[in-house]
Amino acid sequence: MAVKMQADEVAAYLDEVFPQVRGDFVIEEVADMAVRVRMPVAERHLRPGGTVSGPAMFALGDVSVYVAVIAMLGREALAVTTSGSFDFMRKPVAGVDMICECRLLKLGRVLAVGECLIFSDGVAGPVARMSMTYSIPPK
Amino acid sequence: MAVKMQADEVAAYLDEVFPQVRGDFVIEEVADMAVRVRMPVAERHLRPGGTVSGPAMFALGDVSVYVAVIAMLGREALAVTTSGSFDFMRKPVAGVDMICECRLLKLGRVLAVGECLIFSDGVAGPVARMSMTYSIPPK
Amino acid sequence: MAVKMQADEVAAYLDEVFPQVRGDFVIEEVADMAVRVRMPVAERHLRPGGTVSGPAMFALGDVSVYVAVIAMLGREALAVTTSGSFDFMRKPVAGVDMICECRLLKLGRVLAVGECLIFSDGVAGPVARMSMTYSIPPK
Amino acid sequence: MAVKMQADEVAAYLDEVFPQVRGDFVIEEVADMAVRVRMPVAERHLRPGGTVSGPAMFALGDVSVYVAVIAMLGREALAVTTSGSFDFMRKPVAGVDMICECRLLKLGRVLAVGECLIFSDGVAGPVARMSMTYSIPPK
Repeated sequence: MAVKMQADEVAAYLDEVFPQVRGDFVIEEVADMAVRVRMPVAERHLRPGGTVSGPAMFALGDVSVYVAVIAMLGREALAVTTSGSFDFMRKPVAGVDMICECRLLKLGRVLAVGECLIFSDGVAGPVARMSMTYSIPPK
Repeated sequence: MAVKMQADEVAAYLDEVFPQVRGDFVIEEVADMAVRVRMPVAERHLRPGGTVSGPAMFALGDVSVYVAVIAMLGREALAVTTSGSFDFMRKPVAGVDMICECRLLKLGRVLAVGECLIFSDGVAGPVARMSMTYSIPPK
Repeated sequence: MAVKMQADEVAAYLDEVFPQVRGDFVIEEVADMAVRVRMPVAERHLRPGGTVSGPAMFALGDVSVYVAVIAMLGREALAVTTSGSFDFMRKPVAGVDMICECRLLKLGRVLAVGECLIFSDGVAGPVARMSMTYSIPPK
Repeated sequence: MAVKMQADEVAAYLDEVFPQVRGDFVIEEVADMAVRVRMPVAERHLRPGGTVSGPAMFALGDVSVYVAVIAMLGREALAVTTSGSFDFMRKPVAGVDMICECRLLKLGRVLAVGECLIFSDGVAGPVARMSMTYSIPPK
């Protein structure tokens, strides 16, 4: 299966269908069954001590798996988060963008499974791990 | 172990330490090892079709477990999300508040485990299930 | 939706299709979207200190959700574990049977979601929590 | 942090402390924060159709993370499974050994987090994904 949408095409599509998150995420790379997405950290993501909130990291992982699925299946595809899990392992570095490295472990007819490692940009140990299952409803 | 903070005390404390989420959640009930929290649904929580976003539901579950822990341990307690899992099972009803029923299954010296069922207010089948582990660092 | 198979019918069916686990589990109760299953603890389930192994508890949760699904859908139904999560919260009591209280939170056309609390028989605090998603392939 | 126990040392230690699983697993490689463990598939692991049971795969992931932790911390370390999640993504190939590639994402003072990909030996697409948190009690 080949990549159907490149990074800029997915970005334009996201702006169109999810205007609520416009500007929140930068799709840095789209590859076969894998993407890298950046979340520029803004005031609204923060918690006391300068740490990035759990919901903000969840949002980054969630959008990354969505981007990976849509990049492979094309813009006509539907994809809905059905389940997942996460580990928050290290404190994010204050004031530093978050980077999500995501790959699809499965892209089936009905379900897709992605896994994500989230980093503070430039720091080696991952801040969080996530896995997400998307269901792909029939068109 | 008795409840140390009532709903209004926890609400005041949340406003103080998490000003970023001020007004996002209403603590409806605090009981022994259990809380009920309402999320008035706002435009920023929505996705196309009027559905509530995954990150918004995650935020509701996350804050609910935090509230349950703090209510039992008191305002001097620290509590940090370390891991969890979720199932999104039904489409939320458009324009309806989300209600989280949360209870603590364990409140240990080092770890607390909470489970949440999230409902569209007034609808029987749960929209989501979540479980969350908080670590409780020594003071 | 009504229960399609009673406890003894499901037990007979399990013996037939999963002879490998014959005698491992006792289906104590089947109700609407809920079951209770007992695991008599045997030497092979144990770990040093008399504790019950993680895989044994996983097996108990897994079979309980399967039993709950089959009881509702009938013996012709297929059901395959696709994902799940677990928290092991307390040490099981040595030499005591494990009891799994399981209920289905969702029984859809394609996916079923069950949640389980596992107890040492007669002890109040749950030993483990589990959630499991089964996919229900078309016949 | 350097590896404290090599594959054969960990294998001997496992035989000593977990005699119940003697012969079930082969520790193929121990590296820095990573291990590879083989599970020779036996009759007791199977389900109808020749597939490997969920509990057997769980056991493989669980022991792999334990081996990875012990290899890094040494035989005097304690380590207890506290939580985790799994996705079963593809049907295992009948009659073929299972291989678990495991790495530690975090090895803290109190908690270790490992992630596992499980394969049918020689087949590219992973059969299962698992993540496991172990708590490391003070000695």
